[in-house]
Amino acid sequence: MALSQYLGLDKSNNDITKMRPLVYRSTATPVYVDLYVSSITNVDEKAQSLTTQVKMITGWPKMKWNKTLFCGMETFAAPKDLVWTPDISIIERAFGRCLVTARRWMLFRVIWSCGRFPRLVCSFESSDGKNAAQLETSADFVSLTTACKMDLYKFPFDSHTCNITLQSTAYSVYEISIDEITNADGITGRSKELFQAQGEWELIEINVTKAFINIIYEDLNLDQLIYQITIKRRPLLYVINFMLPVFIFLVLDVMSFFIHGRGTDKLSFKMTLLLSISVFLLILNDTLPSTANQIPLIGVYCSAIFILIGISILETILVNLLKAKGKRSVETTTAVTGPNGSVSDSVRDQNEEPSSTLNCCAPIQQNQQEKTCLCWTRVARIIDVIFLILYIITIIVFLSVLGKLWIP
Amino acid sequence: MALSQYLGLDKSNNDITKMRPLVYRSTATPVYVDLYVSSITNVDEKAQSLTTQVKMITGWPKMKWNKTLFCGMETFAAPKDLVWTPDISIIERAFGRCLVTARRWMLFRVIWSCGRFPRLVCSFESSDGKNAAQLETSADFVSLTTACKMDLYKFPFDSHTCNITLQSTAYSVYEISIDEITNADGITGRSKELFQAQGEWELIEINVTKAFINIIYEDLNLDQLIYQITIKRRPLLYVINFMLPVFIFLVLDVMSFFIHGRGTDKLSFKMTLLLSISVFLLILNDTLPSTANQIPLIGVYCSAIFILIGISILETILVNLLKAKGKRSVETTTAVTGPNGSVSDSVRDQNEEPSSTLNCCAPIQQNQQEKTCLCWTRVARIIDVIFLILYIITIIVFLSVLGKLWIP
Amino acid sequence: MALSQYLGLDKSNNDITKMRPLVYRSTATPVYVDLYVSSITNVDEKAQSLTTQVKMITGWPKMKWNKTLFCGMETFAAPKDLVWTPDISIIERAFGRCLVTARRWMLFRVIWSCGRFPRLVCSFESSDGKNAAQLETSADFVSLTTACKMDLYKFPFDSHTCNITLQSTAYSVYEISIDEITNADGITGRSKELFQAQGEWELIEINVTKAFINIIYEDLNLDQLIYQITIKRRPLLYVINFMLPVFIFLVLDVMSFFIHGRGTDKLSFKMTLLLSISVFLLILNDTLPSTANQIPLIGVYCSAIFILIGISILETILVNLLKAKGKRSVETTTAVTGPNGSVSDSVRDQNEEPSSTLNCCAPIQQNQQEKTCLCWTRVARIIDVIFLILYIITIIVFLSVLGKLWIP
Amino acid sequence: MALSQYLGLDKSNNDITKMRPLVYRSTATPVYVDLYVSSITNVDEKAQSLTTQVKMITGWPKMKWNKTLFCGMETFAAPKDLVWTPDISIIERAFGRCLVTARRWMLFRVIWSCGRFPRLVCSFESSDGKNAAQLETSADFVSLTTACKMDLYKFPFDSHTCNITLQSTAYSVYEISIDEITNADGITGRSKELFQAQGEWELIEINVTKAFINIIYEDLNLDQLIYQITIKRRPLLYVINFMLPVFIFLVLDVMSFFIHGRGTDKLSFKMTLLLSISVFLLILNDTLPSTANQIPLIGVYCSAIFILIGISILETILVNLLKAKGKRSVETTTAVTGPNGSVSDSVRDQNEEPSSTLNCCAPIQQNQQEKTCLCWTRVARIIDVIFLILYIITIIVFLSVLGKLWIP
Amino acid sequence: MALSQYLGLDKSNNDITKMRPLVYRSTATPVYVDLYVSSITNVDEKAQSLTTQVKMITGWPKMKWNKTLFCGMETFAAPKDLVWTPDISIIERAFGRCLVTARRWMLFRVIWSCGRFPRLVCSFESSDGKNAAQLETSADFVSLTTACKMDLYKFPFDSHTCNITLQSTAYSVYEISIDEITNADGITGRSKELFQAQGEWELIEINVTKAFINIIYEDLNLDQLIYQITIKRRPLLYVINFMLPVFIFLVLDVMSFFIHGRGTDKLSFKMTLLLSISVFLLILNDTLPSTANQIPLIGVYCSAIFILIGISILETILVNLLKAKGKRSVETTTAVTGPNGSVSDSVRDQNEEPSSTLNCCAPIQQNQQEKTCLCWTRVARIIDVIFLILYIITIIVFLSVLGKLWIP
Repeated sequence: MALSQYLGLDKSNNDITKMRPLVYRSTATPVYVDLYVSSITNVDEKAQSLTTQVKMITGWPKMKWNKTLFCGMETFAAPKDLVWTPDISIIERAFGRCLVTARRWMLFRVIWSCGRFPRLVCSFESSDGKNAAQLETSADFVSLTTACKMDLYKFPFDSHTCNITLQSTAYSVYEISIDEITNADGITGRSKELFQAQGEWELIEINVTKAFINIIYEDLNLDQLIYQITIKRRPLLYVINFMLPVFIFLVLDVMSFFIHGRGTDKLSFKMTLLLSISVFLLILNDTLPSTANQIPLIGVYCSAIFILIGISILETILVNLLKAKGKRSVETTTAVTGPNGSVSDSVRDQNEEPSSTLNCCAPIQQNQQEKTCLCWTRVARIIDVIFLILYIITIIVFLSVLGKLWIP
Repeated sequence: MALSQYLGLDKSNNDITKMRPLVYRSTATPVYVDLYVSSITNVDEKAQSLTTQVKMITGWPKMKWNKTLFCGMETFAAPKDLVWTPDISIIERAFGRCLVTARRWMLFRVIWSCGRFPRLVCSFESSDGKNAAQLETSADFVSLTTACKMDLYKFPFDSHTCNITLQSTAYSVYEISIDEITNADGITGRSKELFQAQGEWELIEINVTKAFINIIYEDLNLDQLIYQITIKRRPLLYVINFMLPVFIFLVLDVMSFFIHGRGTDKLSFKMTLLLSISVFLLILNDTLPSTANQIPLIGVYCSAIFILIGISILETILVNLLKAKGKRSVETTTAVTGPNGSVSDSVRDQNEEPSSTLNCCAPIQQNQQEKTCLCWTRVARIIDVIFLILYIITIIVFLSVLGKLWIP
Repeated sequence: MALSQYLGLDKSNNDITKMRPLVYRSTATPVYVDLYVSSITNVDEKAQSLTTQVKMITGWPKMKWNKTLFCGMETFAAPKDLVWTPDISIIERAFGRCLVTARRWMLFRVIWSCGRFPRLVCSFESSDGKNAAQLETSADFVSLTTACKMDLYKFPFDSHTCNITLQSTAYSVYEISIDEITNADGITGRSKELFQAQGEWELIEINVTKAFINIIYEDLNLDQLIYQITIKRRPLLYVINFMLPVFIFLVLDVMSFFIHGRGTDKLSFKMTLLLSISVFLLILNDTLPSTANQIPLIGVYCSAIFILIGISILETILVNLLKAKGKRSVETTTAVTGPNGSVSDSVRDQNEEPSSTLNCCAPIQQNQQEKTCLCWTRVARIIDVIFLILYIITIIVFLSVLGKLWIP
Repeated sequence: MALSQYLGLDKSNNDITKMRPLVYRSTATPVYVDLYVSSITNVDEKAQSLTTQVKMITGWPKMKWNKTLFCGMETFAAPKDLVWTPDISIIERAFGRCLVTARRWMLFRVIWSCGRFPRLVCSFESSDGKNAAQLETSADFVSLTTACKMDLYKFPFDSHTCNITLQSTAYSVYEISIDEITNADGITGRSKELFQAQGEWELIEINVTKAFINIIYEDLNLDQLIYQITIKRRPLLYVINFMLPVFIFLVLDVMSFFIHGRGTDKLSFKMTLLLSISVFLLILNDTLPSTANQIPLIGVYCSAIFILIGISILETILVNLLKAKGKRSVETTTAVTGPNGSVSDSVRDQNEEPSSTLNCCAPIQQNQQEKTCLCWTRVARIIDVIFLILYIITIIVFLSVLGKLWIP
Repeated sequence: MALSQYLGLDKSNNDITKMRPLVYRSTATPVYVDLYVSSITNVDEKAQSLTTQVKMITGWPKMKWNKTLFCGMETFAAPKDLVWTPDISIIERAFGRCLVTARRWMLFRVIWSCGRFPRLVCSFESSDGKNAAQLETSADFVSLTTACKMDLYKFPFDSHTCNITLQSTAYSVYEISIDEITNADGITGRSKELFQAQGEWELIEINVTKAFINIIYEDLNLDQLIYQITIKRRPLLYVINFMLPVFIFLVLDVMSFFIHGRGTDKLSFKMTLLLSISVFLLILNDTLPSTANQIPLIGVYCSAIFILIGISILETILVNLLKAKGKRSVETTTAVTGPNGSVSDSVRDQNEEPSSTLNCCAPIQQNQQEKTCLCWTRVARIIDVIFLILYIITIIVFLSVLGKLWIP
């Protein structure tokens, strides 16, 4: 196992194995990175974090040795912590999650065997060029939880763009340069291929940008590689399970104006509607975290319908009151005119307002009080019709404005 | 304890103990693997991951020594981290969970005592053949959380196939070859035997396939062993606790057409139905994550019934309106004909529509207005009957289509 | 600190400190174990795992030295990881939880001082016999999560038996033998004494069995010590909070047959019952995981009551329909016989069916149509009575069968 | 850095740095402990565990050196794991949580410089006395999760006493003696001062007791320091949000006896009450774990009110039935006596029972059947009144007994 | 790699690398700290803890070497654990969370090259002044969970001030002095810039104070840097989703006084209101932990409205009872006066109270009993009106007081 000694892997002191092999010539060590998103595990709107399964491939210049000197050995495996690996890390990482299927072993392979490998550590020459065959590569499957600014305003029709910024933690741009292996299109394509989880989120696109950051405190220039991941929520289940039922309740509320019967029946019908929407507010409360500066549109949608039904209940109470007033005056009249023969006319059930009002209005040749009656019931009826028209217009306007904001 | 020195276990440097003993002759080291699923702990549909308890047996060529040289010692135990073990890992592993009852100690045993063990590390000869007695084996009980693409479309009648792919992390096919010890049937059989948890999921089958993967970046050919685990959800509790109640609500809704009484009673009955289904939507919301491209059938089932009942409420409102219109015209007529002797006939409670319509229709020899009355109530009745027939047909068609999609 | 050197504790290499001191004579090293359950922290029916707080005492032959040679030192404390401890592990352990109050330090004490301790490691003599004073003991408080097959069929009257199997991970029966210190009765007694948490579960019994397992792959015979822990759920809160309310709803449903009033009042009463049971299904859904091959009895209980009330609603609708039919025919008759003097008899409120049917049946000397009326209402009444009897019988049979299955 | 060598901190072998410096003279090393509770993070009634933030101060005899010999250095900082610290641990600790702000560095300081520090490790002299200035101290902020037997019987008016027992894990009473620095009053006072979280729990008192335990297996006598922490739940929010609403429902139920109207209205009112209490049982189910031998009083409270309302519904049904029977017989009578002139008297709405019963009872000079009528309605009325009185008495007795049990 | 040896990084013993380089001259080593809050991940009111993402920059005097002696190397990277870093820790830290993107590598850079670096470790000179270019800096992104006293009294209009106290764990004020780099304004500004998460909480301000603490036990004076973070909850979603619906229910309750119809309709309307509020109490129970000495205002708000509606239900029952009493006496009168011709007058539906009372009151020339009737109904009406006025006044007073307390 002389090779291992030769490569400096057998020493227990940290000199060589843990230090970055300094490049002899002053050029920076090129590091190549690829990052594929294989699944979106969790999107936590409350903590504003995105958990993804990421396959990250890092490549850097190969180690080399003369295979004839070491029993013709062409490959050579060593635990990963015995060799230097680039210290690329992710800035947005929110919570510490360990690398998962990270390779704990590296396989080194002879590239060329030209002459003895100079014992000088500094002369660890970099083979430039993206040719992967000339790179030591390390493929890690990482479970990443990155912070991501998410705006829930358009929930559940929202789409978010999250950044994953790769950057060396210690080496400046003069020591390490970071580049992507595959371009954005290739990464998007392959990510979609790899994309395993058919979850709530759809992967739209992955973009790669090369950036350059200057850390003031340390006067340190760093290369950055920014991956922009665009994801879109699949809204169908929310529409079906939440928005549609609430909309049906709204339609039922509008239709309840045509309920024929005692006014209190209409009232209890509408109260049951309100109660049902309260149950749905329970679901909304579970689904939607209290984030955001603006209220999410779905909250506006739900609350507006709640308020609308509340107002329509108030209107029903008012109209009922007016009708009752109308009826009562009629009755008083008939009670006064009671002694004459038309007594039995008043025997009909006064719950049946329309009939009683018709009755009250049929004989127009009556006294002053009759007219007041006429007045009240007419007012009630006019209010009812006008309110219904305004109500429907409000709903249409509200829904169309909301729809435009929601799905532009 | 010379044996330990002899086997190279006493050295604190990593040379021998942590490096793979390179095979002298160019054949790859054979590694044999068996994987039994002993329980399915968790199936997270949202994160699209499967947590299983797995018993994984790995076997590789035995170490050997001459027992006569070492005080006749036949067995020899050493902590696991002092010896080389194959670096088989699982690709789909989603979250880092530690091995659980993993053996921390290996027991080595003499196989044969032919001559001195050559001090040359390279000559660590492999004993080929699956004969387990000639293998060092290591049985680990692992709690695995693997990513698994799950389609909830047929929930709760769904079954999923999850892969567990075993692969060396560093050694190419030229260094390590992976094979299964037991075949698929044996593994399925023994897994079912071991299967402890009588949980929501039933283990249907475990399949083993040998695959071969080429990692482009590194020009590395790897052996893979793919275990395909097929599991099936036990739907009974969902059927009993969720689908049956919702179905009962649908039946009650159909039967509510035969409710005799004031129209508003029918309405309040149906509204209570709708409210109850809202409560069940709460349960559905807890149970079903918003995943999937297509809406899961159970969401369609629930929403469709919700919408159907909503429509039937609208129809009830319409029919009531028409009936009320019919009644009202009759009354107007009778009010006009009031002065004659048949006054007391109109005294009957107008809430009782059937009777009033019968009344209205009995004396056919009446004027124009009477006919309108006849018309409205007849229209209402015809609409009611036609709607009921259409409603029942719709329900039957919907349920049979759904049933076919669900349980093909 | 020569003693530490003498005992081999000062060496940084792993030879002696981490290796099991091989017994010179060929007998196995006796290891004695005791396991007390001090609390049941969690019983996860879904994951089918049991989390217990366990006090585990392990004893093995003492180390010895001549105290006169080492400044008369009689005791000697060393960090636990510097000495060999038996590698007893638990097979069912489901999730990795660390030892909690595990002693990190061992205290060694002189037993006898006969002559120099031979420098030969192999001669580490075992003192046989369970005499604890002659054992090195280690008491660990462990938080164990073990897999346990739980059948929720009888929930909440269920009791489960979970195994904790202790076994050496590496040493065969020839090297280590495992025995219990205290017998089953002693352990049960002392566990109940220690039992801290007055939680949902009651500790019934702990049983100890010695087993013997043969691992085929390695031709390894192992001693096992199986602790069988029997626990019983305290059902009272479930009975009070869940089963009793649902039973009260059932009683109310039966009693609702005696509700006097309009048929639709009875209907709305029953619908509210159904809605309330839906709310309780919400609780059931939270409490009971969807496990088990058979549906748990509590699910059957809940669903059966749900279905029973559903059926009784259907019957109420049917009976109401029949009664309405009866009434209507009477009215038609009276309408025909209207012109004569008994007109005003038909003026009574037809909502009050009993009276109207009595009316209809009182004057028997009427025509054919009257009899049909009689027929319909009689049929309705008979159906009502028969259904009630059948309903009560069904409920009694169902509850008694369920009761027998539940608490045999 | 000769001082570090001198103190034995530079050695990589474990001899001196990790071993307890054995006391030369046979007295035990005195260890002084103080424990302050700075907040109660979580009280898990289900797992019966208490999570507290604890500030634990440990003091032990100081290290010393001659400052003139070491460049006049007076202080000296070293990572904590390089020096011996007392192995005090907590017995009740339920789950492994790491020390949090534990000091990773120790600061050593010269005390006196009298002569050379003898190179003999055994002579590490203890400075006795609680004088803190002569103690090495280590202040750790620990997040402790300790098992604690909690009885929820009086929830939410419960208070619990949890023990935190400090004990050396390895050293017997002959090697280490444990004492508190501050007495109970001082600790309670300072804990209340430190107490940060204004959570659900109020810290009442902290008590310190010195105990002495004998571990039989090892013949080991240990010093213990038991801190008894008494905490009290702040019940106000539970009273306001849970108990008060349920009580209001009970009051409404009692008042519902005075509801004037059709019997079925009273019924539907009471059913809505029952439904509302079901919703509150949902909350209770979330709040209260199913622990305890006895049912918690709050469960009794809730269930008893549920059952009481259930019974009052049954009574309402019975009374309604009796009243209906009474009315019906009257009607039969009047129907028989129908042919005479008083026919129109029976035309009045029979829904209005009081009037009809009055009617039935007004003309006393009637036949036998009339009397039965009288009887039924009278029975109904008497039952109603008696039940109401009994009901109110039951409620008062129940609530006062409950109140006494709850807040003695 | 002589430089590494020269700087003392190659030694495996802990002398130099892990010990704080003692300052030769007696001045304390200046340490400069900056702390930016980049997001608020979680605010746990129950555990009274605040989880923030914090960027913490620590600067301390630079290491230096003569670049000409070491091949002209100007920069030099080393793993962080090989060099001394200041042991600044946070006192309030509640739970152990690892540093996240903490730099594992430090980059050292030549500052000046004047002469040989003296081999004496003690002469590690500090370059004073905040000039960052002369500081070794380390930027850590930490996920901090700090204890924070939060008062939920004004929830959801609450704002909290949490402290993050930085302090050396071992070094006294004579060894290390802590200062901030940027002042409070700069930190607030840059934090707001960095602030990523648009969550429930708004960052108001960050304040920096320098403090000085004396630890009595150790006679240790420590520098402290206290960052006071003021955050404010965004209440909009709570207002919209919780407080508004409950307020609407209150309005509906007030308006229900104007419901015209049978008294029981009003009752069932109010009961449905109460049931709906119960559903919202479910949400409140999920949202608000039972903390706080005083009940949070939102609990008072919710409970007060609950109680108000409960009282208004009681009043409705009372008024209905009085009205019924009034009506009954009238009926008795009319029954007595029945024999005369006005019999058919009493045939009208007694459910229609207003009409019947009017009827009863119209003919004033009646006997004593009539007057009692008049009395009862008048009392009922007066009570109703007075209660309504008082009720509205109570509500207005309550809401305005609450509003003042809430948003001063």
